[in-house]
Amino acid sequence: MRADDPARQERLRALNLELVLRRLLAAPGSMSRTELASATGLTRPTITRIVEELIAGRLVTETGATSDGRAGRPRMGLQLSRSGPAGLGLDIRTDGLAACVVDLTGSVRHLAFAPFTDPEAPAVLDRLGRMATEAVEAATREGLTVISATLAVPGPTDGGIVRTAPALGWRSVDAGALLEERIGHLGLACAVDNEANLAARGELRAARSHTDGVLDHFVYVSGSLDIGAGIILDGRPLRGSHGWGGELGHVTVDPEGKPCRCGARGCLQTYASLAAILGGETLPEGTTPDAAISAWADAGRPETLAALETAAHALGVALANVLNLLDIDTVLLGGSFALLSSWLISGVQAEVNQRVLSAAWAPITVRPATLGPDAAAIGAAASVIDRIGADPAAWLAAQR
Amino acid sequence: MRADDPARQERLRALNLELVLRRLLAAPGSMSRTELASATGLTRPTITRIVEELIAGRLVTETGATSDGRAGRPRMGLQLSRSGPAGLGLDIRTDGLAACVVDLTGSVRHLAFAPFTDPEAPAVLDRLGRMATEAVEAATREGLTVISATLAVPGPTDGGIVRTAPALGWRSVDAGALLEERIGHLGLACAVDNEANLAARGELRAARSHTDGVLDHFVYVSGSLDIGAGIILDGRPLRGSHGWGGELGHVTVDPEGKPCRCGARGCLQTYASLAAILGGETLPEGTTPDAAISAWADAGRPETLAALETAAHALGVALANVLNLLDIDTVLLGGSFALLSSWLISGVQAEVNQRVLSAAWAPITVRPATLGPDAAAIGAAASVIDRIGADPAAWLAAQR
Repeated sequence: MRADDPARQERLRALNLELVLRRLLAAPGSMSRTELASATGLTRPTITRIVEELIAGRLVTETGATSDGRAGRPRMGLQLSRSGPAGLGLDIRTDGLAACVVDLTGSVRHLAFAPFTDPEAPAVLDRLGRMATEAVEAATREGLTVISATLAVPGPTDGGIVRTAPALGWRSVDAGALLEERIGHLGLACAVDNEANLAARGELRAARSHTDGVLDHFVYVSGSLDIGAGIILDGRPLRGSHGWGGELGHVTVDPEGKPCRCGARGCLQTYASLAAILGGETLPEGTTPDAAISAWADAGRPETLAALETAAHALGVALANVLNLLDIDTVLLGGSFALLSSWLISGVQAEVNQRVLSAAWAPITVRPATLGPDAAAIGAAASVIDRIGADPAAWLAAQR
Repeated sequence: MRADDPARQERLRALNLELVLRRLLAAPGSMSRTELASATGLTRPTITRIVEELIAGRLVTETGATSDGRAGRPRMGLQLSRSGPAGLGLDIRTDGLAACVVDLTGSVRHLAFAPFTDPEAPAVLDRLGRMATEAVEAATREGLTVISATLAVPGPTDGGIVRTAPALGWRSVDAGALLEERIGHLGLACAVDNEANLAARGELRAARSHTDGVLDHFVYVSGSLDIGAGIILDGRPLRGSHGWGGELGHVTVDPEGKPCRCGARGCLQTYASLAAILGGETLPEGTTPDAAISAWADAGRPETLAALETAAHALGVALANVLNLLDIDTVLLGGSFALLSSWLISGVQAEVNQRVLSAAWAPITVRPATLGPDAAAIGAAASVIDRIGADPAAWLAAQR
C-alpha cells in the first residue's frame, strides 16, 4: 500500500468529494471556498478542484459575488443546485396515491395526490405511472433532472418485489419491474421500499433541517393502510437482516385476541387499524376513514371515543415492547395517527410510562410526526437524493 | 491533507496493525509472514515491522520453524500469544457466581463457580472480589497477564452503575466502583454490562470459531435470574440508545395479566421466569430451580409440564414481537432455558411460526445456545480481549 498507488488516490478523491458535499448539505445557506477549506481541513487547491467537479456535475452552483460586510474582496458563494438532479417518490397510502419530487437541497418541488378506489396492482401501478410522468414533466419545467424513483408500499419488500401487502391484497408483486415497464419512456429505475421505513427517513431529514435539535433515536409509527413502524437508531434506519423489520402491526397485544388477517390472533392491527377504530361503521359518502373518525371524535361520539381509547392503549402496549427491546425514548405518531394524535397521545403515554423499564429514569416522549401524510412520499424522493450524497464520486462518474 | 502528514501516517499504521491482528485472530492455526503479506495486501517490510511490534507487545509469538512440505526454507509460523494479555469475566447468575479468564486466542483458561445465598450487593461483591483474586493468581501461574475485568449483571447498566436488577433487589448500585475497591490490589479496571448482552457476544464468538457457518443475526434469550435478551444484528450487538435494550422479560404477553415486580402487568417474566415455572413450589434441599424443574419434568409431573408449556407459549409470543420488529430468524435459548430447551422449543416454535409475518417465506430456527450457563462469564472475559482487537495500536501505546 504505497501513497502514490492510483487506486488509493482515487479513493482519497472520492472521500474528499463526499466530505465537501456533506458540508454543503449541512449548510443552511451558501459557503465560500475559503469557508469550505477551513471547515473540511482540505487545502485551497483541493477545494478548488473538487468544487469544479461538483459544478460540472450540476450538484453545486455559484451564487455570485456577495460581500461578507468586511473589507477586502467580495466572496463567491457556493450552494447546492436547485436545478440539478432530483428524486421522485411515489406512495400508496390510506386515502390515495402520492407523487413527490425533492431536489438536492431537500426542498419539495412537486407534490401531487390522487384518490384511488381499486387496490388491484395493475390499476394502482397504471395510475402511479401516469403520476410519475406528470411529476417528471413538472420537474423538467423547473430545470430539474429526475434521476430515479422510489415507491413506498405498505408491506415488506425484497428488491423490487412486494412480499405481502395485506391492506392491498398484494402478495409477491414485482412492483419495481411493473412500474418500470409503465414509465419506460422516462428511463428511470424504480426502487421499492416499505412506507414506514421511508417515512422515518423523511422525518429524520426534517428533524435535521429544523432547529429542534438532534433526533438520533426514534420509532416512527405509520398509521396508514396497515400499521407499520420505521425505527431510527444512532441516526440510521434499522432495517433488520432482510429489511423486513418494523412490523409493529403484528406485534401481539393479546395472544387470545381477535383473529388477524395474517393468521395470528390479537395483533396490534386488530385494535388500532383505522378499520378496527371504525368498527364496521359505514363511512359518509366522500370521506376518508381518518377524516370520518376525526369528525366523529370531535362531535363526542361515544363509540368512536371508546374505540380510540382502546386503540391508544393497544398502541401503547405494542410500543412499550419496542422501547423495552431497543431502548429508544421518542415515538412519532405518523400518517393517520398524526391526524388523530390528540385522542391517542395520553393513552399511549400512560401505557409506555407504566411498561417501559427505563421510563422510571429516562422520560419517554410521544408526539405527532411533523411531515403529516406526505412523509413516506417525501422520504422516498429524498432516498434517491441521499444516494448521491453517500457517494458523489460514483454519481459524477456515471454522468460522464 | 498531505500524504506525508504525521497524523495521517500514524492513522495508517494503526489501521495496518489492526488489519494484521484481525487476520491472525481469524486464522485457526499459525500463519507465516509471507501468508500475512498476501492475505492483507501489505508489503513484506511493513508486515515485518508490524509483526515486530506485535511480538514486543506480547500479542503474537513465533511458533518456530515449520516446514510446509515444499522445497525451500522452512517457514516461521506466527500465532496469537497464549501467554500474553487476558480478560477476566465475572457473572452473577441464577445458581451462583462465576469467574472466567479468556486468553487472546479466545480459549477459556480458568473457570470457577461459587454458589451464593445472600443477594445483597456487599456480600455478592465481596465474594466476587475473592474469586477475581483467585482467577488472576491462576492466570498469572499460566504466564498470562489479566488486563481488566468485566462484570455481567442481570439488569440495565450505565457506566459502572447497575440501574436496576430486580432479581437481586439492586437499584442504582455502583458495582464497578465497589468491585474496583475490593480488587484494588490487582490494579484492574472493572466494566459492568448486562449479562444477556455479554452472553450474546460470547455466543457470537463461539459461532465464529466453529464451523457451523455464519451467524450474523440472532436473539439470545437469557433465562437467568431474570429474563433478558442479547440481540446481534449484522454481527454486532444491538444495544439501543443508552445500552438498555433487550428487556425481553418486560415485553407484554397479556396487558391484563398478573402484576410484575416492575409495576406493569402481564410481562413475560410473570409467565416464564424460573419462579413462575416453579409456581411457589418449595425446592428440595440443595437443588437449584432449573435442576428441580428439569427433574420434575423428566418425572412427568403434570403441574411442571403445564407450567413449562405456558412458559414456552409466552416466550414464543414475546419472541415473535422481537422477530417481527427486527427481522431476525434465529433464536438461541440460553441460561436455564438451554437446560430446559427440550420442553420449551416446540411451544416457542409454534408461536413464532404463527405470529411472525416473514415466517411464511423465511423459516425461523429456535435452538439451545452452545455455551450453556457460562456464556455470560465467557462473553464478559472475551469483551476485554475484543477491545485489544478493535484498537491494537492504543493497546501497544499503553504498554510503553
